[in-house]
Amino acid sequence: MEKTYTRNIPLAKAYRLLNHGPTILVTSSHAGKQNIMAAAWNVPLDFDPPKIIVVIDKKTYTRELIEASGTFAINIPCVAQLEQVYKVGTSSGRDLKDTDKFALHGLETFPAREIDVPLLKGCVGWLECRIIPEPHNQDTYDLFIAEVVAAYADERVFSQDDNGQYHWHFEGYDQEMYDKLRTIHHVAGGSFFATGEVHQAGHTA
Amino acid sequence: MEKTYTRNIPLAKAYRLLNHGPTILVTSSHAGKQNIMAAAWNVPLDFDPPKIIVVIDKKTYTRELIEASGTFAINIPCVAQLEQVYKVGTSSGRDLKDTDKFALHGLETFPAREIDVPLLKGCVGWLECRIIPEPHNQDTYDLFIAEVVAAYADERVFSQDDNGQYHWHFEGYDQEMYDKLRTIHHVAGGSFFATGEVHQAGHTA
Repeated sequence: MEKTYTRNIPLAKAYRLLNHGPTILVTSSHAGKQNIMAAAWNVPLDFDPPKIIVVIDKKTYTRELIEASGTFAINIPCVAQLEQVYKVGTSSGRDLKDTDKFALHGLETFPAREIDVPLLKGCVGWLECRIIPEPHNQDTYDLFIAEVVAAYADERVFSQDDNGQYHWHFEGYDQEMYDKLRTIHHVAGGSFFATGEVHQAGHTA
Repeated sequence: MEKTYTRNIPLAKAYRLLNHGPTILVTSSHAGKQNIMAAAWNVPLDFDPPKIIVVIDKKTYTRELIEASGTFAINIPCVAQLEQVYKVGTSSGRDLKDTDKFALHGLETFPAREIDVPLLKGCVGWLECRIIPEPHNQDTYDLFIAEVVAAYADERVFSQDDNGQYHWHFEGYDQEMYDKLRTIHHVAGGSFFATGEVHQAGHTA
């Protein structure tokens, strides 16, 4: 793992990376081609072994690559990467000649561990995924079910608390830094919500 | 529609209620019984006609009711309802005698329009859903696909902007009120993120 702050997350806790509904970037690779797209429509499906759902339209270049390779990675971007997310979310990799979206937009990657897919640097979470083939779901609903085979996160914003629980945390001494590392939630047209303030229920129950 | 601020949302825009990944409450009803549960695992699946996915565990009472009736409603709660969400999310309606979770927790409802399911007052969005039967997905993955047949939102926080676009907006003159109406995203153990600050990409592209 390239990045200093990147730490391995136990597979049984990987769903917590997606539980709060962030917008993600899907990276893919097959036969020397690679691509990256934005996907707001993702959700955990099971805990252990962890499974996730992502919706990938038939028109996308990513769809071709992931159906051919059977693998993809989920990259969880943060506020600091907003322009990158917008650019990769509003262009297609299919029509690019002699280049790809990574080179075009100056996106740096590091290799995945269990699958042959590039992971985007600067993100705050990553899940390596193997597709569980479900042709009816894929054809009818553009719905992909996958098993998570490795997961990492930026330990500055996702780690174990004093009770041993893994979770996101975007508050601390250098709040300006944390605000840039907040995950994002797509609204529409390049507008995003940052993941906001923490509220704790149960104290007054 | 009971609540003054509740407005109808065109079905083709209903996905925008869930696009940013909020935690929801699922309400259900069958043969004189009704229930409500929390569900972080939900996601839009299609635009028009709108479809959504929700993951409902086999052990839940909600599962019995929605498989019997073929319908359920998604209620999108807000920060002001945090304790309600926590209570309905940490108890089962199955074991209650001569009462239900609504009566037990003092939850007020109003009737749905297209289906026979109670909707929770005080929420900021509602989607009435009819299950599209997919036995393999339901049995294997606890995965329910449904068509959205009606949608509403609290116009104070979800409405059309000057460009005619429907979206969530949690900022305004009375910020204290808006902060209480923010949607929520479950982390774990009764801890939630509020939907946070807006960031706009594309201006510097």
